[in-house]
Amino acid sequence: MNAMPDERPRLDAEEAATLAGLAARVRELTEAAVLTGVDAAEAAAVADEVAALTARLGAERREFPPFAASPDGVRMDRQLANPVTGPLNPLAPPIELEVTSDGIVRGEFTLGPVYEGPPSYVHGGVSAMVLDQVLGMAAAATGTPGMTATLELRYRRPTPLGVPLLAEAKASRVEGRKVFASGTIAAPDGRVTVEATALFVMPQRFVTSQY
Amino acid sequence: MNAMPDERPRLDAEEAATLAGLAARVRELTEAAVLTGVDAAEAAAVADEVAALTARLGAERREFPPFAASPDGVRMDRQLANPVTGPLNPLAPPIELEVTSDGIVRGEFTLGPVYEGPPSYVHGGVSAMVLDQVLGMAAAATGTPGMTATLELRYRRPTPLGVPLLAEAKASRVEGRKVFASGTIAAPDGRVTVEATALFVMPQRFVTSQY
Repeated sequence: MNAMPDERPRLDAEEAATLAGLAARVRELTEAAVLTGVDAAEAAAVADEVAALTARLGAERREFPPFAASPDGVRMDRQLANPVTGPLNPLAPPIELEVTSDGIVRGEFTLGPVYEGPPSYVHGGVSAMVLDQVLGMAAAATGTPGMTATLELRYRRPTPLGVPLLAEAKASRVEGRKVFASGTIAAPDGRVTVEATALFVMPQRFVTSQY
Repeated sequence: MNAMPDERPRLDAEEAATLAGLAARVRELTEAAVLTGVDAAEAAAVADEVAALTARLGAERREFPPFAASPDGVRMDRQLANPVTGPLNPLAPPIELEVTSDGIVRGEFTLGPVYEGPPSYVHGGVSAMVLDQVLGMAAAATGTPGMTATLELRYRRPTPLGVPLLAEAKASRVEGRKVFASGTIAAPDGRVTVEATALFVMPQRFVTSQY
């Protein structure tokens, strides 16, 4: 039941850019659907049109989400449809992460009303999802990508919606197939809103990893 | 910057059902966009059609996501567009949660390829997001809803995509504005894949809460 990397469709940069554009439009549609105030007849008519577009996209359907064609090493960002960072996934904000030469993973992102938990604030689970990904990338940047084994989050203050947030993480220690990492989300004033620590473990069968 | 509950649009059951249908169609479109294998010209043409539908929905735009018109007490499920449970939010699987008479919150759900982390498995951050919500509902079920203060996750085995998963949680202790809760996600064979414990704290200004 585990899909091996070689089974994954590979997209070149141009194909990926076209599908990223499609995902960006679906992301905008998602927000419009959550905030729309049109009447029920119009909402139902739009829903029918959406179903027709789904059928058009489904005329050719892949079995698995695609990977990038030219991975630069063992990196999670091969996953073009990752639910946090993937430009091809309408669920993802998305977050573009950079890895500095000293192994810090960093990305700026803004979360709109579709990610809301308490009114005007980011859902606590969404912050957890983002931090799992960013810490996981920091683990992968050591050359030992892994699956999350433990993740601990401390929410220091509410995380605001609609403003640029900064996520950062770094691996602190590698022990064989285990990598320890920590990171934060910070508000535009620089104050940390959520702190995380995690342990990632590379499964033995993934040693030539598909991440 | 905090939106007070009275500012939120309220939807009656019929309006909510129509918009839930729209969200379900956008959810299907999201999956189709991630898995489509149509050529670039067709993907770009569909993207243009999606943009036109976004414009139609945006003809009347609310400032905030809507709440249910008839809340049954202080409950997070008033949030029709919650990113985990909200039937009106295309990002949400969604998960319909029931609260038993002894305070257990429980819901079955299936996660498709848009929630993928490691190939064929649920993204660790998505499991974290789901558990934050389910434990938060268990906290709210005590009558003391709160914001996440700490969340600790232990990943015992990979969580499979495409099969029915069971999320369960229960509050263990209430101390003033603090509620401790724990819960799990289990695979169809009954084995727990992820365990979580959390502390939720009701902000003092939310004592007549908008959750």
